[in-house]
Amino acid sequence: MPGLFISLEGIDGSGKSTQGRRLAQALHDGGHSVTLTREPGGSPGAEEIRRLVLEGATDRWSAETEILLFTAARRDHLEKTIRPALARGEIVITDRFADSTRIFQGITRGDLTETVDRLHALMIGVEPDLTLLFDLDPAKGLARATARAGAELRFEDMGLAFQTRAREGFLSLASRHDRFRVIDADADPDTVSARVWQAVAPHLG
Amino acid sequence: MPGLFISLEGIDGSGKSTQGRRLAQALHDGGHSVTLTREPGGSPGAEEIRRLVLEGATDRWSAETEILLFTAARRDHLEKTIRPALARGEIVITDRFADSTRIFQGITRGDLTETVDRLHALMIGVEPDLTLLFDLDPAKGLARATARAGAELRFEDMGLAFQTRAREGFLSLASRHDRFRVIDADADPDTVSARVWQAVAPHLG
Repeated sequence: MPGLFISLEGIDGSGKSTQGRRLAQALHDGGHSVTLTREPGGSPGAEEIRRLVLEGATDRWSAETEILLFTAARRDHLEKTIRPALARGEIVITDRFADSTRIFQGITRGDLTETVDRLHALMIGVEPDLTLLFDLDPAKGLARATARAGAELRFEDMGLAFQTRAREGFLSLASRHDRFRVIDADADPDTVSARVWQAVAPHLG
Repeated sequence: MPGLFISLEGIDGSGKSTQGRRLAQALHDGGHSVTLTREPGGSPGAEEIRRLVLEGATDRWSAETEILLFTAARRDHLEKTIRPALARGEIVITDRFADSTRIFQGITRGDLTETVDRLHALMIGVEPDLTLLFDLDPAKGLARATARAGAELRFEDMGLAFQTRAREGFLSLASRHDRFRVIDADADPDTVSARVWQAVAPHLG
């Protein structure tokens, strides 16, 4: 596919959403066409599935059903938003993609790690060209995340031990795949933006 | 698992829903505990996914996303309704199960047949002990189905050629799996009920 497909990953409160907006703006200012999107969600159908997954009691869906719903949402997001934008030659920036499922569902149910990978290979089969991992001390990330009020605190609710395991999981994934660039997110926003730009610039035509 | 797991399959208008209710009543009258359920749906979560799939425009979801949503609904149905009932030693009768996905999605997108099977093996992995296939001339089935008013005519809308291929698909599946019993559904309801009972009786303890 033409275009450039970038995903932003990291624990909650790592600043990736803010940095995603800044990166999109900087690319736009540089004359690039950009689509900024997010998961779960990112297309009208996927947003409806997102609501189904995130609303209601935490134990409403089993881990297996949740993974299937996230994968259905991802497939719709890919078909309706990501692929058409890439086909137009745009830069697509998505706030979370399949790595988030690998890490967050993998922590909750370690025995499902292989199932998540096989389901991804079967029904999605696409990885970003570049994944920016926003790395931060989980205690700092959790403080930022819980300071934001919001109805969708399910993952954040799971506390410091959970966030610590998530950080370790992301770093381990980054060490195994060339598409990752680890961004030290423990700095003021301008400094982090400069680090992001350094990672992205080599991929621009 | 203890209990007995029966699925009812066939083209629309084949009478399987009516016969399911009759079979449930006959088993209940015979002193058995029975759970009568249906797909898509069959549990509160799966019913919500059903609404998401069946409402809106026909091309709202791609075949791949639809298969993922049906599989998520089936997983929830299995966990919340079917397995608990079987664990209590009940007879579970479901109006449609995985064979319907194999046939209806397989007809629409023949290249997805293997994907459907692999997804089932990965995320569901269970087959009924007994599958009753209600077999009928598709022209008769379609006349019955379209006579019923209803908002969920998406599959029925697809016409005689579609129903003919579905019938052939079901018969082919039945010829390859021992769990199938083909019921000639072209008769009055009492006669068909007698045929159903003949197929089910050998499975009762």
